[in-house]
Amino acid sequence: MSTPAAQKTAISPRREEDFPEWYQQVVRAAELAEPSDVRGCMVIRPWGYGIWENMQRQLDTMFRATGHRNAYFPLFIPLSYFAKEAEHVEGFAKECAVVTHTRLEVDAEGKMKPASALTEPLVIRPTSETIIGASYAKWVQSYRDLPVLINQWANVVRWEMRPRLFLRTTEFLWQEGHTVHETEAQARAEAMLILEIYERFTREHLAVPVFTGAKSESERFPGAVQTLTIEAMVQDRKAIQAGTSHFLGQNFSRASGIQFQNREGKQEFGWTTSWGMTTRMVGTMVMAHGDDDGVILPPRVAPTQIVILPITPKEDTRARVLEACDALALQLRGKHFADSAIEVEVDRRDLGGGVKNWEWIKKGVPIRVEIGPRDLEKNSVEVSRRDQAIKSKESMSIQEFAAGAPEILMSIQQNLYDRAKKFQEANTRVIESKKEFYDFFTARNANKPEIHGGFALAHWNGSHEVEEQIKNDLKVTIRVIPLGDGEPGHCIFTGAPSRQRVVWAKSY
Amino acid sequence: MSTPAAQKTAISPRREEDFPEWYQQVVRAAELAEPSDVRGCMVIRPWGYGIWENMQRQLDTMFRATGHRNAYFPLFIPLSYFAKEAEHVEGFAKECAVVTHTRLEVDAEGKMKPASALTEPLVIRPTSETIIGASYAKWVQSYRDLPVLINQWANVVRWEMRPRLFLRTTEFLWQEGHTVHETEAQARAEAMLILEIYERFTREHLAVPVFTGAKSESERFPGAVQTLTIEAMVQDRKAIQAGTSHFLGQNFSRASGIQFQNREGKQEFGWTTSWGMTTRMVGTMVMAHGDDDGVILPPRVAPTQIVILPITPKEDTRARVLEACDALALQLRGKHFADSAIEVEVDRRDLGGGVKNWEWIKKGVPIRVEIGPRDLEKNSVEVSRRDQAIKSKESMSIQEFAAGAPEILMSIQQNLYDRAKKFQEANTRVIESKKEFYDFFTARNANKPEIHGGFALAHWNGSHEVEEQIKNDLKVTIRVIPLGDGEPGHCIFTGAPSRQRVVWAKSY
Repeated sequence: MSTPAAQKTAISPRREEDFPEWYQQVVRAAELAEPSDVRGCMVIRPWGYGIWENMQRQLDTMFRATGHRNAYFPLFIPLSYFAKEAEHVEGFAKECAVVTHTRLEVDAEGKMKPASALTEPLVIRPTSETIIGASYAKWVQSYRDLPVLINQWANVVRWEMRPRLFLRTTEFLWQEGHTVHETEAQARAEAMLILEIYERFTREHLAVPVFTGAKSESERFPGAVQTLTIEAMVQDRKAIQAGTSHFLGQNFSRASGIQFQNREGKQEFGWTTSWGMTTRMVGTMVMAHGDDDGVILPPRVAPTQIVILPITPKEDTRARVLEACDALALQLRGKHFADSAIEVEVDRRDLGGGVKNWEWIKKGVPIRVEIGPRDLEKNSVEVSRRDQAIKSKESMSIQEFAAGAPEILMSIQQNLYDRAKKFQEANTRVIESKKEFYDFFTARNANKPEIHGGFALAHWNGSHEVEEQIKNDLKVTIRVIPLGDGEPGHCIFTGAPSRQRVVWAKSY
Repeated sequence: MSTPAAQKTAISPRREEDFPEWYQQVVRAAELAEPSDVRGCMVIRPWGYGIWENMQRQLDTMFRATGHRNAYFPLFIPLSYFAKEAEHVEGFAKECAVVTHTRLEVDAEGKMKPASALTEPLVIRPTSETIIGASYAKWVQSYRDLPVLINQWANVVRWEMRPRLFLRTTEFLWQEGHTVHETEAQARAEAMLILEIYERFTREHLAVPVFTGAKSESERFPGAVQTLTIEAMVQDRKAIQAGTSHFLGQNFSRASGIQFQNREGKQEFGWTTSWGMTTRMVGTMVMAHGDDDGVILPPRVAPTQIVILPITPKEDTRARVLEACDALALQLRGKHFADSAIEVEVDRRDLGGGVKNWEWIKKGVPIRVEIGPRDLEKNSVEVSRRDQAIKSKESMSIQEFAAGAPEILMSIQQNLYDRAKKFQEANTRVIESKKEFYDFFTARNANKPEIHGGFALAHWNGSHEVEEQIKNDLKVTIRVIPLGDGEPGHCIFTGAPSRQRVVWAKSY
């Protein structure tokens, strides 16, 4: 292991040198996840999974509070089900893992081979509209059975040729909500409610500001009438689609036969929605807040919020130092930050203090506290905040720190949000001409990388041809069409009338 | 829907008429789960999944308290990995779902077909020793990296020809712990620790007593040196293997190459364990406590512990009754039972009071509370406990009920355990001769079904041939060999010396 002193930063390359490679290195260095030998699949290590568990708990609380309940549906979708909705199957056909056999046998050459072929192949769910729809068709008979408000936490598989840890993996973890409503208005309101939950979760828990709104037709979920999205900006100024909520109209209820007797006694197809947020959020958060020394975790999702590092240079003071660390940990664990008890770890491992300190920096733990023999004499601790310069330490009395810890955590959470918000604002620009638009996304200046790209707010005439052209020329797409009344104007590409500005960016 | 008055019990057949069919009916009537169109896979409905979520939360807390952390490993296992441990692959080869293609294509006849064949087929994990072992081989280098104490919550697939909801399904949900230790003694201690956690969880949370101990060689996990198990008795007096903890020796570390430098500087293979508990526990609990009117839930795992049923015969008192129900619910939600706030639901649905009441009976909610206009006048409520006769109601003042609710829940939890314990004891018999043994498992008496079968404690000489004979003759197997010093004696089948009595039973 190279010592941190030998290099300027703990992570190499630095963000401005090679952002994608920086990201891979940060994820590995923080022990969040690593690639597995199974192509495109990742191993989520305990530190990364702990972040995901916090996200799950918090999102789940929001879903429950709005009347949703969890359930679980099969991993396998019979091919015939999957093919019921034409756009849907077309959208996913190129990335489906297919189970064709249910047994292994040793062949004549002594090699293990698949055996017992299935009559109908099974698709591993890339998303569950069709398999869940089959159940809903049985459960829903009358308007009295509505709404159905169900969420599922599950793994899904979409075969991925260019995997990237958390952001794009063949297998990923997510929640997928699937609801059925009596009226179109209720289903549209549900899709909006979830969009608001996603926005609030991302802002309050991940400390990441987002743009919200609808996708253009070409970026919609296959089979949806409307796809709502939240789009985050990360530090290379690209967009990440961080959560989507779909109004599906009656498309999937027709395909699955979800029908009910309405209040007038007539048979009607249900109005459905679906919505999902994935382990991609872990990557988004890393890309939004990390620095050249590693991950920086918002306290609300950190698996450990405070790590206590005992400094034990001599045997004779060792026991007393450890005792003081344990006492402080006990005191902190009795305190709350946001909705739960503060998570504290005393790192008693028999490694050098510098090595341990740098491990925790790279992992992004919000607060590091050092206690050594000299601190004990003064009844003080040395406190480092991960959102401040690595070398900065504040000395304070143990009592003062213990009392103020929740407030420091709150301050870190807020500071990360403020920084990200400022960055987003600084890199979002209203653009009024095609030239300015092309310049914005193509200008390269090694000394001032901040002038290259970001989010562009520009008028657009609604045409798919324009979208295609921009995508081909610049790899830029419409990330989101803000909701509500926009300011009318003229498309900067065609001059045709435009109802509002839309958000353009390069994206992951 | 047939009215409950038209039949003696809500569930038909009754337990004594046809226990397996009673079970299927109970699970359906309580809306816990139902079969899906995908052979062997079930849909876990919100009420059933809510029970599983409570189990997860409680087990997870126990794992965390003993130093374990969660992580996530790939769903897919390359065939070559899977085949590394010979006994292991042989044990699972007959029930593996195999992914062979990664794409769907429309063929010449216009039919959707699997395309893009994989070079190496992927097995969907039936258990994850081999795929997790590949990661551990990278992570473990020195004794300083040990122990590795990781758990995973996941879905697994074992192709099932005779599925039964919760008890045996092709896809099921579980937790699988996988640990690596420096010494054999530490790994054996870990396997024991988990056995104790499983026993305590089952007793304290599910209110189900179990026998604990080791499996005989023929019933061991494929590749294990020792399999520890907890075995529950359900109401048809059969055994259910409810959780297993395996000491794997160095078998899997050799297969996966999990090696470390020990304290003497030598390379050594790690000592590993694995252990799992599954959604089968939901079925076990139903079979242990249910009655002829449906499920009876131990309060600790009930998704809703108290349901409040407003009785609103007339429009003019309706608002006041609902208000009183909401006020009571609010008061109850502020109280704790065991470690969490009491979960309360006010069932405001516009259905007949009798229909609603019977739905909750079948679902097994621990306490039902009725409030009608007359109760309001007396400031009282009518309380029914699911562990008591269906028609029994106790009238008490609202204040008294609100104050005493946690205690009533505690009493139900304890009562269910006591009943199950009494049943287990009444149906466990020390058996001293082969004839008595055969009689115990074959005597049929329609009027006194309670004399047929149960758990037999009998001496055994340790021979596999005897096990095979008994299995062929009676479908009875050794469920568990109790740990510790038993009472020596002579095998009731062969007369050969026996170190202790072992537990025999028919099983699921």
